[in-house]
Amino acid sequence: MTVTNFELRAQVEELHARYVHALDTDQLEAWPDFFTEQGRYRITTAENEARGLPLPVLYAEGRAMLRDRIASLRHANIYEPQHYRHMVSAVLVERESDRVIKSTANFLVIRIMDNGENLLFASGRYVDRITLADMKYEERVVICDSRRFDTLLAIPL
Amino acid sequence: MTVTNFELRAQVEELHARYVHALDTDQLEAWPDFFTEQGRYRITTAENEARGLPLPVLYAEGRAMLRDRIASLRHANIYEPQHYRHMVSAVLVERESDRVIKSTANFLVIRIMDNGENLLFASGRYVDRITLADMKYEERVVICDSRRFDTLLAIPL
Amino acid sequence: MTVTNFELRAQVEELHARYVHALDTDQLEAWPDFFTEQGRYRITTAENEARGLPLPVLYAEGRAMLRDRIASLRHANIYEPQHYRHMVSAVLVERESDRVIKSTANFLVIRIMDNGENLLFASGRYVDRITLADMKYEERVVICDSRRFDTLLAIPL
Repeated sequence: MTVTNFELRAQVEELHARYVHALDTDQLEAWPDFFTEQGRYRITTAENEARGLPLPVLYAEGRAMLRDRIASLRHANIYEPQHYRHMVSAVLVERESDRVIKSTANFLVIRIMDNGENLLFASGRYVDRITLADMKYEERVVICDSRRFDTLLAIPL
Repeated sequence: MTVTNFELRAQVEELHARYVHALDTDQLEAWPDFFTEQGRYRITTAENEARGLPLPVLYAEGRAMLRDRIASLRHANIYEPQHYRHMVSAVLVERESDRVIKSTANFLVIRIMDNGENLLFASGRYVDRITLADMKYEERVVICDSRRFDTLLAIPL
Repeated sequence: MTVTNFELRAQVEELHARYVHALDTDQLEAWPDFFTEQGRYRITTAENEARGLPLPVLYAEGRAMLRDRIASLRHANIYEPQHYRHMVSAVLVERESDRVIKSTANFLVIRIMDNGENLLFASGRYVDRITLADMKYEERVVICDSRRFDTLLAIPL
């Protein structure tokens, strides 16, 4: 492992950390800016991935779609106040090309309702392609362990 | 990001890790030494922080007060054997000044009772000011996601 | 902390991450290769460790035994489809000798059943001795917080 790899690793961990804190502190409008202009965001399940099923739970491409999602979320969320706590762990980093870094990491999301109840909301894997030049997600695939969750009104994972 | 930033990041992660292992292995008497002589420790909730309410769930300033807290905890805990498992994640590090590093990190605490039961006890954010010279907490603010927990007899978060 | 220590830390974190992803993506046959030829794997509980009880929950020594365990697991698991999600956190790294690194880390394992149910399956500490030359576990001791789990049919922790 060369110094360059440490730098990559530290930069990727920092990117994941900034992403997570933006969501957990309700700065949802900053979320699209973690992606490239044409960046893709996809939520799927381990089961679907294993079976090669093409249909994701959620798919958005480009910052405009990501912004739309946040806008509709802001509207809907009036009725169910909640927030998330993301944990990210076991980060793996490798260069895919001169331009792109590939990263895999485990995540776990706790949902906290306004009455104080918390529960393990989702767990799974982030599989990312990150642009080296500006450290943004060209693609973030969120592979959830379980299909048992409501994504319609959900804050991004 | 320069090499200096990697060093900072690694040093902060190591500090958080040592703190957590001291608590989880019941070395509570070592806890005050993670703070500066006048170091402040505060537990609050996300709700209180958002509303600007000044009243913390817990406040201690200076190692003497921190030591007192451990002493009373040792006495009380005779009656309810338990321990914690801390997970720390999504660490963000930045220099506040030549002297102080600011760090934000997510945490999650599992409580394990002596009968073997475990539960998600608390989650939230650490917001820290750390002295660069000796890597101690000048201030550790523990912002819990939920107000639903008993802090009176609790091991430090 | 010298640059060498950062390198060690990053290498150990990467090893832990690769180990965890192998288990979580059901590449169990790769598991023995994370250990040295005579590597030891031991699951125990915090209670047993504290009392100095020698009897581990599980003990395996050498890759052959580790491979046997996976083989029998493959057979048994036909009847109870499940998988795990490991989180690793608070990694501490120190040199034990010129040849061996000692590492301590907290872990948490979520078990996901095929019907979509998930639960906090286990938490605890990894205490490892890792060979510097090839970054393999010479010894991995998994100290679980609770004795309340079924290890007979369990995927390795």
